[in-house]
Amino acid sequence: MNGATLALKTAAAAGVEICFANPGTTEMEFVSALDETTEIRSVLCLFEGVVTGAADGYGRIAEKPALTLMHLGPGFANGIANLHNARRANSPIVNLIGDHASWHLEADAPLTSDIDSLAAPVSAFLHRVESANTIGPAMAKAIAAANGSPQKIATLILPQEAAWETTNSEEPSPVPIAEAPDTATSIEDAARRLHDHKEGMGLLIGGTLSAASLHAAASIAEKTGCRIWMETFPSRVAQGRGLPAFEAIPYFPEQATEALSGISTMVTAGASAPVAFFGYPGGQSYLLPENCEVLSACGTARNPEIGLQELARALKAPAKTPARIEPMTAVPDGPIDAVSLGAVIASQQPENAILVNEAATSGMGLAIHARQAPQHDMIHLTGGAIGQGLPSAVGAALAAPERPVLAIQADGSGMYTLQSLWTMARENLNVTVVLCANRAYRILQFELARSGNQTPGPAAQGLMDLSRPDLDWVMLAKGMGVPAATARTTGELSQLLRERYQEQSDGPFLIEALIA
Amino acid sequence: MNGATLALKTAAAAGVEICFANPGTTEMEFVSALDETTEIRSVLCLFEGVVTGAADGYGRIAEKPALTLMHLGPGFANGIANLHNARRANSPIVNLIGDHASWHLEADAPLTSDIDSLAAPVSAFLHRVESANTIGPAMAKAIAAANGSPQKIATLILPQEAAWETTNSEEPSPVPIAEAPDTATSIEDAARRLHDHKEGMGLLIGGTLSAASLHAAASIAEKTGCRIWMETFPSRVAQGRGLPAFEAIPYFPEQATEALSGISTMVTAGASAPVAFFGYPGGQSYLLPENCEVLSACGTARNPEIGLQELARALKAPAKTPARIEPMTAVPDGPIDAVSLGAVIASQQPENAILVNEAATSGMGLAIHARQAPQHDMIHLTGGAIGQGLPSAVGAALAAPERPVLAIQADGSGMYTLQSLWTMARENLNVTVVLCANRAYRILQFELARSGNQTPGPAAQGLMDLSRPDLDWVMLAKGMGVPAATARTTGELSQLLRERYQEQSDGPFLIEALIA
Repeated sequence: MNGATLALKTAAAAGVEICFANPGTTEMEFVSALDETTEIRSVLCLFEGVVTGAADGYGRIAEKPALTLMHLGPGFANGIANLHNARRANSPIVNLIGDHASWHLEADAPLTSDIDSLAAPVSAFLHRVESANTIGPAMAKAIAAANGSPQKIATLILPQEAAWETTNSEEPSPVPIAEAPDTATSIEDAARRLHDHKEGMGLLIGGTLSAASLHAAASIAEKTGCRIWMETFPSRVAQGRGLPAFEAIPYFPEQATEALSGISTMVTAGASAPVAFFGYPGGQSYLLPENCEVLSACGTARNPEIGLQELARALKAPAKTPARIEPMTAVPDGPIDAVSLGAVIASQQPENAILVNEAATSGMGLAIHARQAPQHDMIHLTGGAIGQGLPSAVGAALAAPERPVLAIQADGSGMYTLQSLWTMARENLNVTVVLCANRAYRILQFELARSGNQTPGPAAQGLMDLSRPDLDWVMLAKGMGVPAATARTTGELSQLLRERYQEQSDGPFLIEALIA
Repeated sequence: MNGATLALKTAAAAGVEICFANPGTTEMEFVSALDETTEIRSVLCLFEGVVTGAADGYGRIAEKPALTLMHLGPGFANGIANLHNARRANSPIVNLIGDHASWHLEADAPLTSDIDSLAAPVSAFLHRVESANTIGPAMAKAIAAANGSPQKIATLILPQEAAWETTNSEEPSPVPIAEAPDTATSIEDAARRLHDHKEGMGLLIGGTLSAASLHAAASIAEKTGCRIWMETFPSRVAQGRGLPAFEAIPYFPEQATEALSGISTMVTAGASAPVAFFGYPGGQSYLLPENCEVLSACGTARNPEIGLQELARALKAPAKTPARIEPMTAVPDGPIDAVSLGAVIASQQPENAILVNEAATSGMGLAIHARQAPQHDMIHLTGGAIGQGLPSAVGAALAAPERPVLAIQADGSGMYTLQSLWTMARENLNVTVVLCANRAYRILQFELARSGNQTPGPAAQGLMDLSRPDLDWVMLAKGMGVPAATARTTGELSQLLRERYQEQSDGPFLIEALIA
């Protein structure tokens, strides 16, 4: 058995089921080994930003790691941006980066580069494998790290001789099961504080937010009177009719500090103390009031479900809060804008969908109307590195083939990793893409005005404008094998979504929604 | 004046004329400053791999740096792969990477990352600017570094307050002119050696190869009897009727070592001693015979024109060698394959074109037929990081608007940075793309077989196959505003190219050539 095969057998034995890949010459042994390890499904992506974004989406839904397989420094570099998002989401991922045989590095061949320097910023665990005889244990350690608390990104750099050499042992290395961190004390502290104080108490939840977490949080609020906030971009949150919903911390710092004024103690669960997305002149980094105390309740886990439930029990909070059912907003036929888009989506989305939200400014209505929609999970852009939505939809669909995936995608961000559409077609994934074509980097138009430039000249306008020429997303989708249609009005968008979900057809579909 | 404006004024005063950009919030001051610095043309690219690849192509033709403008670590990371190619080509580039205001870094906001660690592997000069008062000198140093010998990549990391603060001075910092390295001794040595020895002498040329360099090399060979080799992937080489042409060192190491056997002294000019692209089991890194002496003639410059001409003079070699005009190969109508494609291109390409060759395996015929073609420059993939061709064509077209650009592009590589097509349309660039659709990562099919796997299973086959579904490049091009057509035979391809160059129409055009 060669090192590549033993590495994959070790991963398979630990329950790894999928490998998103764009291999090259230095990964040929892994390509062959994938045929010998049929427990692991291999999925070709036509760009590494799709590879890593898919692994992120998979990790957020499956809550266990996918493998990625990428080619040397440059191939890996293409995947860094979506690993940045995955790092912020604490998604579990195990990256396999092929490198030249170690004796070949000195020659500084054309593809040689400092992979360690490239990988370090996005890898909580980073290890360069020494030989075929250590590749099994290295894989086991990487998987254990990815499954730790919090879950994280583990990266193995694999000199090619470690893949092609014969191993001493053919036995997969066992992967130790991560111990849950002991949070008894912190939960006790948080419970005491929430119980004793009535005013200025806040609870900030984030990370991976299940329905059970939201119910626990709501019951804590009902019992203690604390205010609950959700982080601006949780990695995954359950939403919809009958689920408690909490205000997210506003995106712009001046709105956030105003909203959070008066909080004197903030208990956090699955989230960190909130900071501004950007620093503006004269602005501030930290959003909580200056003397606000921050108390972490659930330790390092990014899924605070167990911690919140224990906190609720410690407070003797009611097991369940009454469900709040909001009536669906009627959507009159008319132009598609940032608000009406959300209303249409809420009214047409199927039960138990996974919504991937990289709609940027076009998605404002999603937050407004989500609580009217059938229950679903929403995935957010956690790290601000655009191009995450379409790849995450690929990964989410492969993690939960029984659930419909609905990707609400801004056009500017969508162009970053549009190669995702091809993988959706090849793998026949149940993904519906609503491509929000406002033909601008709209958020930058806002930000330019915020920077003091109210009258952009032709250069500035040209850098924020996606027209001249307009992108035709129906052609782009069809060019990659994904059927597609255009919606010009809310009525057309509703109709296309209704047909899509009545047909129950296999495979992906893209709707280009022209934003007014 | 703020720091951003002073930085751009400094660049403009040093002769910088273009900025390839995909900015975000942290670069808004630079976006505004581009309207105040009209000497610098700004070009929006819809992905950073296009930004950096365009800067590479621009630098190879203009031999002076373009600016790039990118957004924090993740935006920059998307540009690393093509910077890797640019580094191998010694292309002059000045990267501007916006970062958070320095006081905001501590908060570890969502987009914060270790930009220095990401940038170091591709930056010969890397500097984090301290303030608006040092941004002018920093820009001057970066440009001087980019224009050094060899030319190189310089990267400035720009905390946002350095861009928005008011500067003490409004005077652009002067950029020192790089001194040419003193190569008199090395040329004398090389001349003496070439003069004294008759057998086993080789001359290896590479880097940026002008017609004058090729003539000088040919006359050196005529005078001394040395054998001349060209590096496998020179950054730019003049080719065509009447120009001397030299055999390139073969790609696969076993062919290369066989070809180079018998060489006892290799004089290099613009190239380094050749190494294997990959290390194979039992293979070797270095391709020259074991005791071969290597003598660098032209110092660090990657354009060896002056050095080769001085070497020829020192040897009293003839001023010009007789031109070798080869008759054009007739191209019978039939299937388009890797060889016939090259014959069609050679027979149809216009005078003085820039050919961008990222054709991979489909481009074998280009080398065979190039000497029959009208004179042209060819740009190669220097660093092996695929996705360089289409962006380089963008940059080349902007560097030389009077010259037609013909990009011969493999489909797998083309998918990496297909967003380039949109910039070609927006800037109305005179680029013709011949998209070689063989619907496979063909080189990997060869490499898998070389690794010993002659019978790939479904997983391995699936990872090297670009069909299921087929990409439709005509739709992809039209979706980005580029008119396009399909060629199924050599006759159709000839006809489309003939029409294209007879019409002399503005703007880009894509031909999807279906490879048999």
